[in-house]
Amino acid sequence: MIKLAIVGYGNLGKGVELAVQQNPDMELLAVFTRRDPKSLRVQTPGLQVLPMEQLEEKAKQLDVLILCGGSATDLPEMTPALAAKCNVVDSFDNHSRIPEHIAKVHEAAKAAGKMAVVSCGWDPGMFSLARIYAQAALPQGESYTFWGPGLSQGHSDAVRRIPGVVDARQYTVPVEAALEQVRSGDAPQLTTRQKHTRHCYVVAEEGADKEAITRTICQMPGYFADYDTTVNFITAREMAEKHSTMPHGGFVIRSGITGENTRHTIEYSLKLESNPQFTASILVACARAAVRMQARGETGCATIAEIRPCDLLMNSIEDIRAHMI
Amino acid sequence: MIKLAIVGYGNLGKGVELAVQQNPDMELLAVFTRRDPKSLRVQTPGLQVLPMEQLEEKAKQLDVLILCGGSATDLPEMTPALAAKCNVVDSFDNHSRIPEHIAKVHEAAKAAGKMAVVSCGWDPGMFSLARIYAQAALPQGESYTFWGPGLSQGHSDAVRRIPGVVDARQYTVPVEAALEQVRSGDAPQLTTRQKHTRHCYVVAEEGADKEAITRTICQMPGYFADYDTTVNFITAREMAEKHSTMPHGGFVIRSGITGENTRHTIEYSLKLESNPQFTASILVACARAAVRMQARGETGCATIAEIRPCDLLMNSIEDIRAHMI
Repeated sequence: MIKLAIVGYGNLGKGVELAVQQNPDMELLAVFTRRDPKSLRVQTPGLQVLPMEQLEEKAKQLDVLILCGGSATDLPEMTPALAAKCNVVDSFDNHSRIPEHIAKVHEAAKAAGKMAVVSCGWDPGMFSLARIYAQAALPQGESYTFWGPGLSQGHSDAVRRIPGVVDARQYTVPVEAALEQVRSGDAPQLTTRQKHTRHCYVVAEEGADKEAITRTICQMPGYFADYDTTVNFITAREMAEKHSTMPHGGFVIRSGITGENTRHTIEYSLKLESNPQFTASILVACARAAVRMQARGETGCATIAEIRPCDLLMNSIEDIRAHMI
Repeated sequence: MIKLAIVGYGNLGKGVELAVQQNPDMELLAVFTRRDPKSLRVQTPGLQVLPMEQLEEKAKQLDVLILCGGSATDLPEMTPALAAKCNVVDSFDNHSRIPEHIAKVHEAAKAAGKMAVVSCGWDPGMFSLARIYAQAALPQGESYTFWGPGLSQGHSDAVRRIPGVVDARQYTVPVEAALEQVRSGDAPQLTTRQKHTRHCYVVAEEGADKEAITRTICQMPGYFADYDTTVNFITAREMAEKHSTMPHGGFVIRSGITGENTRHTIEYSLKLESNPQFTASILVACARAAVRMQARGETGCATIAEIRPCDLLMNSIEDIRAHMI
């Protein structure tokens, strides 16, 4: 049995708690939190909730920690610090800072003889794998990543910060015509605007200037200015009824040629009812791989691109070869 | 530079010759054939074509052999024999005999300190990976594999053996309604007939009994009896004009749940204008991985499920981490 603990109990941590129940080779021993442990309502009866201060002491009894903090401020500190104590996995998803994150985590894990697997999830994660395998199969070609239809947390937060906005949700939607063009193998050059549209659902304060809010959203640089954006004002009740889940998904498509001009298209897509639950499920599979890799003497920091696929599954290699190849 | 040779120069071998040109870290040194070397017309000016008898002597100068024989009779003998001389990759695709094939190849490769990667291609191969990653991400769920639309060589051959048939092509087509049902996440139980249809294009001898041929095809056990099959009689000229290419493809779809009943769907699909050229391209990527694995001291037999994704790409790990994760 792989003994694991969750560090951080937000949506992702709750998803890990659920995911562990689907993996009978794993045992969830504790949740660690920065909040008052008594304030947490965990779903598993009897599961220990402990303050972060006890983590260092308990780490010796654990095979792996699943780090469920955010990429902006939590993980850059937490992952290197905890990789010095235990095998760890995280879902660090700030793409441009991944090499820097790996370097810091690698140093800590290597020195401690531990294995850290970072940037697990679906992008980075499953989508990274889709890009890598597609390029291996078709070295000459063009890869495209589309996100959505799905809820974007960062964009929702940006809208919520606008004066007069009580609550907001932002959905990112890939443009169907762009998807079709990419699938056709034409390898088009697409602008930001041509690839995705953005759709906001906003609860405004009573008497707020809705036109001004709409204008502020649509012109927001970095978030909306480069996109075709729609803004819909709804009631708090509609928000609660129709926008309480966190769906997401997307597409990785590569078109390429072999020989003279023989065309091929590879497409990988996800349709997820819950972004955090799916991400959590991948974190758990990566935790299994981290434990196995360290048991074989591999130490340091790796991404999912450096994990043998078979190490993610609880099945034996004989079973995989006989039934899944 | 990785020095490689092709063993067997049919459609797959020709595809490998083309694929190597897209991989600047590789150098194709020779083609080995059982036929008279003078009878082969290779596409690369100056490429050596040598008789099989010289393979053992030349193997010492090569990093890896790409074995392009058939799975029925060639590879079961060829792969273990040559894995004792050099790193090898093959596309052994008889799913039910893969464990047996691996066992024989492993023994030979291990004893010789070589690395053999077997069953590379798209199914087995990319589709195996799609099944493995989808199950790792969604342990609770159901996976489905659909093949086509595409040309099935085995079924075309079966039709060609019927008396009165001059030439034949058989296309396998997935049933759209079944695909949609699977995508919806309903996890249906599907019969063979519900998943695929079969479409035959037949050139008959003059005066042949077309009704009898149609009946023989549609009732053929193991090949057509369990499917809805259409038979179209065409001229030799139509066959040459419209059915000379070898398109294929297919879908791996897994639907599963996390938590209580949160649904997710993962889909991987391929649309290939040339089955042998795409398979060849994957063989070349696996050849790179075999050479790297052996250089690290790994020996024996592996499938693509045991290869780290990054080992398939010519890019450095730093480049992969910075741009593809």
